Amino acid sequence: MATYAAPVRDLRFVLHEMLDVSNAFSELEGLEAVSDDLLDAILEEAGKLCENVLFPLYQKGDEAGCTLAHAQVTSPPGFADAYKALTEGGWTALSCAPEYGGQGLPETVKFAVEEMICSANMALSLYPGLTHGAYRALTGYASAAIKDFYLPKMVSGEWSGTMCLTESHCGTDLGLMRTRAEPQDDGSFLISGTKIFITGGEQDFTDNIIHLVLAKIPGGPPGIRGVSLFLVPKFLPDADGDPGARNPVFCGALEKKMGIKGASTCVMNFEGARGWLVGEQNKGMRAMFSMMNHERLWVGMQGLSLGVTAYQSAAEYAKERVQGRSPSGPVNAQGSADPIIVHPDVRRMLMTTRAYMEGGRALYLWVASQLDRAAHHPDPQVRAAGDKRVALLTPVVKAFLSDVGTESAIACQQVFGGHGYIREWGMEQIVRDARITQIYEGTNGVQAMDLVGRKLPMEGGAVMRDYLDELRAAADSHAGTAAMVEFIAPFRSALARLEEAFDWLMERAATDPSAPGASATEFLRLMGLTGLAHMWVAAAATALEKMEGDNTGFYAAKLTTARFFMQRLLPQGMALLASIRAGSESLMALEAEAF
Amino acid sequence: MATYAAPVRDLRFVLHEMLDVSNAFSELEGLEAVSDDLLDAILEEAGKLCENVLFPLYQKGDEAGCTLAHAQVTSPPGFADAYKALTEGGWTALSCAPEYGGQGLPETVKFAVEEMICSANMALSLYPGLTHGAYRALTGYASAAIKDFYLPKMVSGEWSGTMCLTESHCGTDLGLMRTRAEPQDDGSFLISGTKIFITGGEQDFTDNIIHLVLAKIPGGPPGIRGVSLFLVPKFLPDADGDPGARNPVFCGALEKKMGIKGASTCVMNFEGARGWLVGEQNKGMRAMFSMMNHERLWVGMQGLSLGVTAYQSAAEYAKERVQGRSPSGPVNAQGSADPIIVHPDVRRMLMTTRAYMEGGRALYLWVASQLDRAAHHPDPQVRAAGDKRVALLTPVVKAFLSDVGTESAIACQQVFGGHGYIREWGMEQIVRDARITQIYEGTNGVQAMDLVGRKLPMEGGAVMRDYLDELRAAADSHAGTAAMVEFIAPFRSALARLEEAFDWLMERAATDPSAPGASATEFLRLMGLTGLAHMWVAAAATALEKMEGDNTGFYAAKLTTARFFMQRLLPQGMALLASIRAGSESLMALEAEAF
Repeated sequence: MATYAAPVRDLRFVLHEMLDVSNAFSELEGLEAVSDDLLDAILEEAGKLCENVLFPLYQKGDEAGCTLAHAQVTSPPGFADAYKALTEGGWTALSCAPEYGGQGLPETVKFAVEEMICSANMALSLYPGLTHGAYRALTGYASAAIKDFYLPKMVSGEWSGTMCLTESHCGTDLGLMRTRAEPQDDGSFLISGTKIFITGGEQDFTDNIIHLVLAKIPGGPPGIRGVSLFLVPKFLPDADGDPGARNPVFCGALEKKMGIKGASTCVMNFEGARGWLVGEQNKGMRAMFSMMNHERLWVGMQGLSLGVTAYQSAAEYAKERVQGRSPSGPVNAQGSADPIIVHPDVRRMLMTTRAYMEGGRALYLWVASQLDRAAHHPDPQVRAAGDKRVALLTPVVKAFLSDVGTESAIACQQVFGGHGYIREWGMEQIVRDARITQIYEGTNGVQAMDLVGRKLPMEGGAVMRDYLDELRAAADSHAGTAAMVEFIAPFRSALARLEEAFDWLMERAATDPSAPGASATEFLRLMGLTGLAHMWVAAAATALEKMEGDNTGFYAAKLTTARFFMQRLLPQGMALLASIRAGSESLMALEAEAF
Repeated sequence: MATYAAPVRDLRFVLHEMLDVSNAFSELEGLEAVSDDLLDAILEEAGKLCENVLFPLYQKGDEAGCTLAHAQVTSPPGFADAYKALTEGGWTALSCAPEYGGQGLPETVKFAVEEMICSANMALSLYPGLTHGAYRALTGYASAAIKDFYLPKMVSGEWSGTMCLTESHCGTDLGLMRTRAEPQDDGSFLISGTKIFITGGEQDFTDNIIHLVLAKIPGGPPGIRGVSLFLVPKFLPDADGDPGARNPVFCGALEKKMGIKGASTCVMNFEGARGWLVGEQNKGMRAMFSMMNHERLWVGMQGLSLGVTAYQSAAEYAKERVQGRSPSGPVNAQGSADPIIVHPDVRRMLMTTRAYMEGGRALYLWVASQLDRAAHHPDPQVRAAGDKRVALLTPVVKAFLSDVGTESAIACQQVFGGHGYIREWGMEQIVRDARITQIYEGTNGVQAMDLVGRKLPMEGGAVMRDYLDELRAAADSHAGTAAMVEFIAPFRSALARLEEAFDWLMERAATDPSAPGASATEFLRLMGLTGLAHMWVAAAATALEKMEGDNTGFYAAKLTTARFFMQRLLPQGMALLASIRAGSESLMALEAEAF
């Protein structure tokens, strides 16, 4: 069976010991009071909720799925109560603004808590997760009237939110969309069209659902430049702010999906539904992206969160399941066989997962800490630098962590042998659920294109060079420490490969328009691996400092895992660099008809 | 939607142009008459059956699944008729012995046809596939009486067969099994115990089901040395050979699985069922392995076959779906967007799949041709060499092809974006189905251990060195051809890496018992990649010869794909070698409790 225990110890290691976040918060306006003790209390309490309330519903949600009758969705048994526990406990409003009822805590804290929520029940996490996306778009772009009216109920979880972007013929290329918004005399619009893949488009948790919808106003500019964002409530609020008349927006069907079956994924029909403009006319994509970038960090973390559950489950199984003997002689001589954790190849799968998950946790929290700097630092230059760093690393966190999260889920399923393929054991669900993180909020190929096509060229490459400088400085800072050589040497090699790939790509892009796309996926992975190496260097340095006198084995395990990462996973970069330098020729040579 | 067209042209390229099989058959006893024309007729006819009868049931079989009531299984609608079409057409008896009603054709031909059957409907293919496994074990080890009595009906498909190995607490380590066989005075045995994961343990296609069951005779040697093989029919045949009394062996449950839902995967309860010994007492594993090695080649090919269907489906989609614009300017300027095949990253996924699938097809057919040499060559030394080559490469074909098949299925699902995650489109089924090929018939980790622990050390490493010699000779044979340099140079580098890894591993294994297991998976992949490079060298050489005057683009596409493989996939070996040479230390350092 799948098992889950909140990784509070490791989260504390990253937050306090590696990143020293409360010290960082002390410099950030409005976050000065966020202490270690407060953080720990939040992690402990959130962890308990995830273990005791959310995780027990994880497998049941997959088995029951969502059902639709008369445009009403029924969510899996227990989901509505769990949603209530999440929202009433304030767990979905940690980083929301106090003026709308949020707790004004750092994004770093929110992300740490979200990891546990997603590990425990990803399908359930999506309902408040999408509300949070809508919250972000509204805070950034809506009028004060809309914000004051809608946000308190969305922050409390009383009302939920959705993001309605995709249509059946367009996802990545939203300029092709057909949904229309007809302006009315009272300043509102009537929205008509069909959106697909709408998470939480209908559900049975909340009194109202606030849809944020991309649509085109007739007569506007063609393509993406004519897209605007609208707020479309399921029920039009009356003067008291209570749900009033039913707006004609209906769930026409539920998609049958590979996984995340506890989440309702709806086809939504807008049949002249009343909506109001959010932000400027024809500037809908800007508002959407402000939300989407945050969601992309969240999705990368989701992929990782499923790898974490998979790891814990596989580690437990490997310690219990007996089969065969250790290659170096029986460890359970009185038993009929040894636990399979004695087998090097089983350990390979577990250590690989562990190295990706612990390193990835540090990476997403480090990026989240840049979000806090970008939002709260008194110095505008520091804020701007934080913003750019987040922009650069968002596609890497999204794609790399969802890739290694899914790969890890598959590896951990493999530890179970044939039982891993059987639903009862829970591992195949984790794989099916993880798979979506590589696809939604922009496929990982789209992320890679965003990285090489938009992010690397930012400021003529200066944003990337700043990042490379920081990585180099991190390596240099340990130059005098003999015990760090085994980590720094491979890190420097990885860094040199990344720099070479970057220079090659920038140069080649000038003459070959296909070059960035041809190397995009490999470049993103190279950058993700190097980013993880950076984190593992920091983790190893911290562990070396704290090791003396520790008898829990925690720091020793960190060093072993860092070593494993450097020796066995980081060398992937050699192959990636070779593949990048092969260029676009063999990729673009075939005529389309030859495929 | 998923689409499938039998790849007859490419099968012919491998069989006739690369391997020149009919010429090879002319030297093999009993296969002299197998001509190119006969082969082509078989491929064409089998291809039509796969396209028109099997593939239309593929998705329906997944949706309907199998159901169990009163120990009776109902298979998906249409499956029984399709099974009849397969068996009555003789498609499941191609390589069976004429004395039992088979067609006595080469294994090479059987495997080529099986690829199409599995591509078209893997779940359905498993029923006759397991019968064939049972056929092989019986031909090799059963008494003449059993063979004469049972084999004709199994070859005709009138009766089916199963392989009952796994119990809930033991799969890889069969020595732990608890199923018992009590000897009776009449020479038969009464079998009691529960077996799990029994494909086709019950179905509604055939009048009788012949179970081959591993069990222990009380008082025998402990562990694996006390395991015997028994034949246990569902209905005890009467004197006329017709199904008579019901033998107490019942399907207790159907497993709920991630995929291959059209195949019944049964828990089988043997309640004192009557059985007969197959082969010698306590030598059951030997008979089982004779069957299992063949099944392992078949499973590797299965993984590949699903990658083939995934590729065709994704290529069609990529040519039709419009989204965004080509980086080098619109190719569909009058339309609203370009087909996504213009995007380099989409091509990366398709070319990767294509390079693995076409190279993998050549590899499994080359190994199958060694099976034919091993069985039919007049010279016993050639037969023995063929046997050893097959033994060496069986774990590579099984694990490497199922790995790249599943990776390819995932990549092709990714081409579909969000639609890839929706059941209706069929891609997520292919991924779920492909996943089992990495698990059953020995997980891919078990294959890797078999390779490094048993196969590499055969004859002190001589079998592996013979293979390396053949690879080197293949490289040398093109030394004078300028147009081959771009293929030979990377192939030589790969070969050097494989040789270095082999020497390192053999040396290290002498002092570190964990070393083989620690590098097993990476070594197997390195060997698979190098084996594919060998095939791509041969394919490129053939294409260069035939290219002149060809206006179909077939040979030009072969060269492009060979180039892509060499430039972008083969470099993985650099990382694998580094990982192998890292040894077992960081893998084995952690105490079990630290996981």
